[in-house]
Amino acid sequence: SNAVRIAVMPGDGIGVEVTEAASFVLDRLARRHGLGITTETLQAGAFLYQETGTAMTEDTFRKAEACDAILLGAMGWPGIRYPDGTEIAPQLDLRFRLGLYAGVRPIRAIPGVPLALRDERAAKIDMVILRESTEGLFWARGRGEMIGDAEARDTMVITRATTERLARFSFRLAQRRAERLGRSQTVTLVDKANVFLSMAFMRRVFGEVAAEFPGVPHANHYIDAMALDLVRRPWDFDVLPMENMFGDIISDLGAGLIGGMGYAPSADIGDTHAVFQPSHGTGPDIAGKGVANPTAMLLSAALMLDWLAVRGAGQAWADAATELEAAVDGAFAAGLRTAEFGGVGTKDVTKAVADLIPA
Amino acid sequence: SNAVRIAVMPGDGIGVEVTEAASFVLDRLARRHGLGITTETLQAGAFLYQETGTAMTEDTFRKAEACDAILLGAMGWPGIRYPDGTEIAPQLDLRFRLGLYAGVRPIRAIPGVPLALRDERAAKIDMVILRESTEGLFWARGRGEMIGDAEARDTMVITRATTERLARFSFRLAQRRAERLGRSQTVTLVDKANVFLSMAFMRRVFGEVAAEFPGVPHANHYIDAMALDLVRRPWDFDVLPMENMFGDIISDLGAGLIGGMGYAPSADIGDTHAVFQPSHGTGPDIAGKGVANPTAMLLSAALMLDWLAVRGAGQAWADAATELEAAVDGAFAAGLRTAEFGGVGTKDVTKAVADLIPA
Ligand SMILES: CC(C)[C@H](C(=O)O)[C@@H](O)C(=O)O
Ligand SMILES: CC(C)[C@H](C(=O)O)[C@@H](O)C(=O)O
Repeated sequence: SNAVRIAVMPGDGIGVEVTEAASFVLDRLARRHGLGITTETLQAGAFLYQETGTAMTEDTFRKAEACDAILLGAMGWPGIRYPDGTEIAPQLDLRFRLGLYAGVRPIRAIPGVPLALRDERAAKIDMVILRESTEGLFWARGRGEMIGDAEARDTMVITRATTERLARFSFRLAQRRAERLGRSQTVTLVDKANVFLSMAFMRRVFGEVAAEFPGVPHANHYIDAMALDLVRRPWDFDVLPMENMFGDIISDLGAGLIGGMGYAPSADIGDTHAVFQPSHGTGPDIAGKGVANPTAMLLSAALMLDWLAVRGAGQAWADAATELEAAVDGAFAAGLRTAEFGGVGTKDVTKAVADLIPA
Repeated sequence: SNAVRIAVMPGDGIGVEVTEAASFVLDRLARRHGLGITTETLQAGAFLYQETGTAMTEDTFRKAEACDAILLGAMGWPGIRYPDGTEIAPQLDLRFRLGLYAGVRPIRAIPGVPLALRDERAAKIDMVILRESTEGLFWARGRGEMIGDAEARDTMVITRATTERLARFSFRLAQRRAERLGRSQTVTLVDKANVFLSMAFMRRVFGEVAAEFPGVPHANHYIDAMALDLVRRPWDFDVLPMENMFGDIISDLGAGLIGGMGYAPSADIGDTHAVFQPSHGTGPDIAGKGVANPTAMLLSAALMLDWLAVRGAGQAWADAATELEAAVDGAFAAGLRTAEFGGVGTKDVTKAVADLIPA
């Protein structure tokens, strides 16, 4: 059969809880649209590391790699660390080993979800942060150097090859969004080219690729000015590619604007593989209480369905993605409130959304 | 005489305009409190570079170095660049050459100034971002490496010596603030110790210094989580030391919360020297129009007076600092609006503040 194979990695803490929510909703969409999905549930994460000494086995990695897409909950846990003190984050290994250079982090105001900013234009926030996810400062992960006990160094690496790919991804995404939203989309590279050679290089390579897309407006913005402008006028931005560490920071800032991490989906996309996961962590303080907000995970599942459609799975998958996003929007527009805003828990949120998907 | 010598470096664009505002107000304070001040105006910046090929001469640097404090407007200009494409930023050279490791960037809600966040607790925002300003990623400035045209590298450096000094500065600042504000002040190191060796090192050294200050609460926070939390609950934070690049980003975010860069003062402080300047740039879009907001500059001048008092200039200087800050607060509480919020220009803002300083 030509069923799509999805590796499901629930991970740790609330990762498990929101993954259940996604499975429930995906089942309903699959039945309705006749989507052929087979899933393979794979264990990885901090608790697996604690039990076995390995956060993700080679066998698990191979199985995930062999699937068409990977749906991931969240991984990591305070107090469970690698011997060097860094976090158990097999999701970072997936990004590096599968070459998932495009960390797609949509930041969109969902009508009905409380916004952080006072200005009413915040209701129009609809942008995508593109966090390069295989190099930049994160290249240094596991490669940091100590000079005695007096100094430590980490190196940021920007390559032409990855920058070109990220740039093409950015401009294509802008084209697709312009078509879907019916308005022009500017690609704004966020950098610190005024100070760093690597960033001046990144800006130059982006400019070269921009010339291949004369129809897409292109701009540059310094990272510090962007941190300011995302608080002052986030509704002015569309597609924001940037270096890995910058993207880590800015995507959390962005999530804060539209209700918090519980509303921030993500997709880590490469040329051959992709991982879909909510931007939030494992929620150690709320895990096991049934209050985790599954919205980011449901929107991540929608990103997955859409990506599978673009990759050739067929129109039914695109329709399912649209329907899932519309169900999320509909539920909040109708008054749904998640637990972090004094509302209901994971199961009730999931049910409210699922109920808006026709059977 | 024991007059305090202040090097005044207006710089470029609105730097010149807000420096005039500061001089006007400082004159009045000096007369009133009998402060012995002599000033030396020094030219440096992008336009000087354009005319002469040097952004700041050695002679100018020596003269500034010989003063007791440096008051700086802003420097840099779009289109005027060093041959390698990086920005004309002699203020960065001052930070490095004078060892100004503590970039003090207070973020405080001034009653009457429009806040970005919807939540009413935003009126309680009162924190200090401490941007380490001599190493971190900025160590790489002028030291970036190209590998052919395929790759570029910049290295982040964290030293024990600077980290210890920054940590001591943080805890002492927290002690002073606790006394002045009458409530406990937590020092929260903002890092990415879960991924980078240099950051794990920074966290460890901070922890060691924290043990010298058992009376000051101490916490650690990841940079991405901090970007989120500054949008969600900035009123919960007090003193936030962090690496140079992180501080650059986070201090602009913070400024966005309390009205923008026009309200964000800064002090770059070392063991022997200090530079005081508004956090904003040269405002190429508004320069020459008389609309620049001088508030950040006036508050920077207040930081200077306070620092001079701490360094032994005497109680009159501390009183002048307090009075200047109170005059700024009083003017806005009485309805003053700056041009970026549809209000009045530089001269009128300056006059409104100066009028609240008794003659
Ligand atoms: C858990 C952590 C290492 C990770 C990162 O920094 O990439 C997380 O913050 C993320 O954004 O996915
Ligand atoms: C002008 C620029 C190089 C400078 C910096 O990045 O340090 C500025 O943004 C600042 O914050 O003082």
